[in-house]
Amino acid sequence: MSAINRCLFLDAQHNLRIEEREVPIPQKGEVLIKIAANGICGSDVHFYKDGRLGNFVVTEPYIPGHEASGTVEALGEGAKNFKEGDRVVIEPGIACGLCSFCKSGRYNLCPDVVFMSAPPVNGTFCDYITIQESFVFRIPDSLTLTEAALAEPAAVAVHCVNRARIPLGATGVIVGAGPIGLLVLQAFKAAGGGRAICVDPVESRLNAAKKLGADLTYPPGGPNLENIGDVVFETAGSKEATAALFGMARHGGKVIQAGFPDGNAVKLDIATLIEKELDYAGVHRYANAYGTAVTWLSDGRIKTDGLITHKFDFSHAAEAFKWAAENPGQTIKVVVEN
Amino acid sequence: MSAINRCLFLDAQHNLRIEEREVPIPQKGEVLIKIAANGICGSDVHFYKDGRLGNFVVTEPYIPGHEASGTVEALGEGAKNFKEGDRVVIEPGIACGLCSFCKSGRYNLCPDVVFMSAPPVNGTFCDYITIQESFVFRIPDSLTLTEAALAEPAAVAVHCVNRARIPLGATGVIVGAGPIGLLVLQAFKAAGGGRAICVDPVESRLNAAKKLGADLTYPPGGPNLENIGDVVFETAGSKEATAALFGMARHGGKVIQAGFPDGNAVKLDIATLIEKELDYAGVHRYANAYGTAVTWLSDGRIKTDGLITHKFDFSHAAEAFKWAAENPGQTIKVVVEN
Amino acid sequence: MSAINRCLFLDAQHNLRIEEREVPIPQKGEVLIKIAANGICGSDVHFYKDGRLGNFVVTEPYIPGHEASGTVEALGEGAKNFKEGDRVVIEPGIACGLCSFCKSGRYNLCPDVVFMSAPPVNGTFCDYITIQESFVFRIPDSLTLTEAALAEPAAVAVHCVNRARIPLGATGVIVGAGPIGLLVLQAFKAAGGGRAICVDPVESRLNAAKKLGADLTYPPGGPNLENIGDVVFETAGSKEATAALFGMARHGGKVIQAGFPDGNAVKLDIATLIEKELDYAGVHRYANAYGTAVTWLSDGRIKTDGLITHKFDFSHAAEAFKWAAENPGQTIKVVVEN
Amino acid sequence: MSAINRCLFLDAQHNLRIEEREVPIPQKGEVLIKIAANGICGSDVHFYKDGRLGNFVVTEPYIPGHEASGTVEALGEGAKNFKEGDRVVIEPGIACGLCSFCKSGRYNLCPDVVFMSAPPVNGTFCDYITIQESFVFRIPDSLTLTEAALAEPAAVAVHCVNRARIPLGATGVIVGAGPIGLLVLQAFKAAGGGRAICVDPVESRLNAAKKLGADLTYPPGGPNLENIGDVVFETAGSKEATAALFGMARHGGKVIQAGFPDGNAVKLDIATLIEKELDYAGVHRYANAYGTAVTWLSDGRIKTDGLITHKFDFSHAAEAFKWAAENPGQTIKVVVEN
Repeated sequence: MSAINRCLFLDAQHNLRIEEREVPIPQKGEVLIKIAANGICGSDVHFYKDGRLGNFVVTEPYIPGHEASGTVEALGEGAKNFKEGDRVVIEPGIACGLCSFCKSGRYNLCPDVVFMSAPPVNGTFCDYITIQESFVFRIPDSLTLTEAALAEPAAVAVHCVNRARIPLGATGVIVGAGPIGLLVLQAFKAAGGGRAICVDPVESRLNAAKKLGADLTYPPGGPNLENIGDVVFETAGSKEATAALFGMARHGGKVIQAGFPDGNAVKLDIATLIEKELDYAGVHRYANAYGTAVTWLSDGRIKTDGLITHKFDFSHAAEAFKWAAENPGQTIKVVVEN
Repeated sequence: MSAINRCLFLDAQHNLRIEEREVPIPQKGEVLIKIAANGICGSDVHFYKDGRLGNFVVTEPYIPGHEASGTVEALGEGAKNFKEGDRVVIEPGIACGLCSFCKSGRYNLCPDVVFMSAPPVNGTFCDYITIQESFVFRIPDSLTLTEAALAEPAAVAVHCVNRARIPLGATGVIVGAGPIGLLVLQAFKAAGGGRAICVDPVESRLNAAKKLGADLTYPPGGPNLENIGDVVFETAGSKEATAALFGMARHGGKVIQAGFPDGNAVKLDIATLIEKELDYAGVHRYANAYGTAVTWLSDGRIKTDGLITHKFDFSHAAEAFKWAAENPGQTIKVVVEN
Repeated sequence: MSAINRCLFLDAQHNLRIEEREVPIPQKGEVLIKIAANGICGSDVHFYKDGRLGNFVVTEPYIPGHEASGTVEALGEGAKNFKEGDRVVIEPGIACGLCSFCKSGRYNLCPDVVFMSAPPVNGTFCDYITIQESFVFRIPDSLTLTEAALAEPAAVAVHCVNRARIPLGATGVIVGAGPIGLLVLQAFKAAGGGRAICVDPVESRLNAAKKLGADLTYPPGGPNLENIGDVVFETAGSKEATAALFGMARHGGKVIQAGFPDGNAVKLDIATLIEKELDYAGVHRYANAYGTAVTWLSDGRIKTDGLITHKFDFSHAAEAFKWAAENPGQTIKVVVEN
Repeated sequence: MSAINRCLFLDAQHNLRIEEREVPIPQKGEVLIKIAANGICGSDVHFYKDGRLGNFVVTEPYIPGHEASGTVEALGEGAKNFKEGDRVVIEPGIACGLCSFCKSGRYNLCPDVVFMSAPPVNGTFCDYITIQESFVFRIPDSLTLTEAALAEPAAVAVHCVNRARIPLGATGVIVGAGPIGLLVLQAFKAAGGGRAICVDPVESRLNAAKKLGADLTYPPGGPNLENIGDVVFETAGSKEATAALFGMARHGGKVIQAGFPDGNAVKLDIATLIEKELDYAGVHRYANAYGTAVTWLSDGRIKTDGLITHKFDFSHAAEAFKWAAENPGQTIKVVVEN
């Protein structure tokens, strides 16, 4: 194949540079995908700015990105679920399929998972990737490839509501109105939730929440937020917000922690956990969520209007990262189109 | 109180007659409701036409009706949840609150339940009733009292989807597009379901289903209906449909039986139940469903357009019953307004 | 009735005194119980020593005790589940039966619950009490009335394992080997758990745990306790233990908080909650647990050997409280026999 | 390797013959197992007697058997969970690990599963097999390899109770006291069940049930069996028993179908399913059950005493099949030792 495969590399000196590589050849069970668009995730921005996130450190150049859509270009031996030209999205964590977590439906906890764009594993900011076909999902014509780049964060939101097993008609509180919060808001409603209350200090984000279905919006704190949520989601990654979660929940409520609070350790009021008999659940990526994410993106229950605030061409990918890193207040989601 | 309390009585000779009675006085923990509207249920029509249903027989005159909305007129001693003028709907099965079923959240199975309109217990086709306030639910102004008369069958639909614990994004098959089927269709979508396929022999009902969100509609039978539903609902009360349910379900699917098939005993293919490892669940009325039903009726996720096909004034209630009994093909739901 | 009803009163000055009162008359739906034995709960000891616990304060004399067994002596109007002479245990929290918590099976969260022995509500340290019959449970002859006094803490343990929905064969860690810990250990095994590891600083308690089925025992801390529990129970009410819970849990594990840590607020590692995708659940008393507690006490799956370390006669009830208050290290459970 | 690999072949003419084959070489991720013992399953007997079962037909010679224990002899490339000499049991259904069923924890429904001993796929009646290591489970020294041959039917029983999600302390009815019934009885108790009632027409089987923990035993039919089970298991594969299941269940109960009734189609009383609001679940093999089966076999909660009624040496394997086929009334489980 004579096609060009542009790849965006991030190095340990915070430089982003496009280089050309061979188009990879799909192996047994794999498909070759021509990438159409990539969302920039907060974790990509972290690696760009800080060179590290958690235990992952950028030591040598690697390809960021794991929120990708594209088109099937070729099939490896034995691949059977797709045909050339199929429009698809990519689930970027390749689990082993053999361990007890994989076998029991929680493959997001697989200790041998290979997660694209967690350095040194390459991600999807390039023209072509190959991937095991069981981590690829077809999308309908009604969904543009640019919108479909939101399938990955939408899958996070689906996993949040799966973990919450939303009581039908429940009242939800969504703390944080960034991309994950706005997707959780919509997933909460799509999953049968009733009234939704969004909490964020930034007014423009609360306005976006209102447009996407929030019934009430509030800045953090205040008496209005005590004892109101049958389900409370933390998507802001805020220490203060996390410390306030149990107070926002109603008796018998559920509290879902999707955001990593800075510093990790947070003082929580255990007496409230007990007296209200709460359920508090962590959320780690997603499992079995892509199908639902695509369904809800396709039928309009998850809207991308107001979520994709900026688009860049692949040749300007470095600028896209720079924008996202420097303008967090004005940006919800940046998508780079190939 | 000098108000008139018109009551509709059905006797063992299939006669319906309006008589006046005293306005009842709310006892401890009760509220007095001025009824605004009543839907006519299929069971009401059964008692009217046949004088019996299951083990219940009309021997002396009683008041039918259990799909009622109205306004709070007075409070009994200790009633604390409502104030005069509150617009409400009525949950008509008064459970004991003390038995193991009531204590474990399945009060619909309470052996001592008193169900309004199951003869000889009087129902709601009158101007005033009293009822324990914990079986009364406030409705928002956005919902008309006539629409709210559908809260009872909507609660049946909510209970169906609660019993199914809909996997988010699942494909559903709804067999029967009468009032329960059309409400289950909407509740299925509201609860997070994905594509919905409605099955009914009557084309006008399938058209109503399309308007209310069905993605596909089919007459019963045919190859299109094999192995397609993650969740399959029987709402038609048909022996043939019930016998076909396991075939319509996908491997690992759920089958929900809401309709009573005529004759009760149905030959089922147990090998399919095992090989597909299905879950097959009966649905008996509802429990803890009214709140959700009101929420979804209020926010438009359950629409009544196309469901309420006929309205009558209370003074013409007998004609309403006659119409419903004689025109099942043309009727979805008849509502009688006080 | 000319019987004597001795009642143990605790006043705000930490005095315990037996006084005689009239035998109460069972009202509608109630039964009269002749008390046979009472366990002393840690909360009773708190009120005795400190005059308060949480928001509850001893201001005037009241009767402590809520771990009682006895015999049905008389039936109030309408009581139908028991006959005179039935041997029974008492569930001491009388819920309203009407609120949304009661109706959905979580009556332990009822805001109007009347909990016996929470001052000023009288408890069971007397010869006779009356109680709504739906909170009374028959016990088989195989169980002595003294052993049966452990039904209440056993119900706490049953509720702990109900909240955990133990994965069959799971490995459990039980932190704290006091009465609740030793009952949770046994309930964990009875509910299908596999290996059980008990953690306590007191060696005699670990020995009791071994006799009751613990597979391994450890003092708190140490590398042996990292990442080992599919389910981890905190029953010690320790701040340090609570802070260590997430570390003890395996990926995908469940953490159950039954003990109130002193000071209430505890610093928790939220990153671990997320990365391991844990479920962390508070436990508040119990609901729908007494039947199971009686079954397991009766069939030997919950043993009281080694749990009841001290017995006193009712006339020496004050000494029993003194002993329990002054010898926590040597005492697991004190039972007072009438 | 110069070892001899005796293999038992069954042909379409109902002949069983031992032949020698090469010892297989473990491929990537596989282990080589030296087989120690094999239980004879009812399905093996079916293929022996009838040459077919369901859609599977014996057309050319194949190796039966899928209830095997043994010792790890060699590791293929990349195999990492075992070392030579490990004593193990074998899960005989190799699922694809990639489809939606595998990824969501229900790999027993994998459409591409390769099930050992389902002709033409070879089974475990030989001296050596190779198998993907993720379907191999280590057993403790406390368990003999002969007892361990019961891990496969024990896994069926574990899956039955997993499907039932046994309410703790529930009353169970087990219909059929053959090997599966006696294992379900024990798994029911191990999973937290309370009283267990076994039903079988053969008195010697009911006696075995009593020894293994049944609280009551009855022949089929009769008034004692109406409305008694919170959970009812069908393990007999009987049409009459299946038709009676809904009647045996209590309101709100669960009915688990593990046995294939002869003829497959059974007339069921749907009105009872609805009025009692039952949950009726099919059971297809097992998933994620081997670990629990090994745990419970090892700690004595599942006993094999009285289950293994006959043992044969591998050289007499044909006689073992003959015995099992001709003496069903006297046989519970036949084990063949290598």
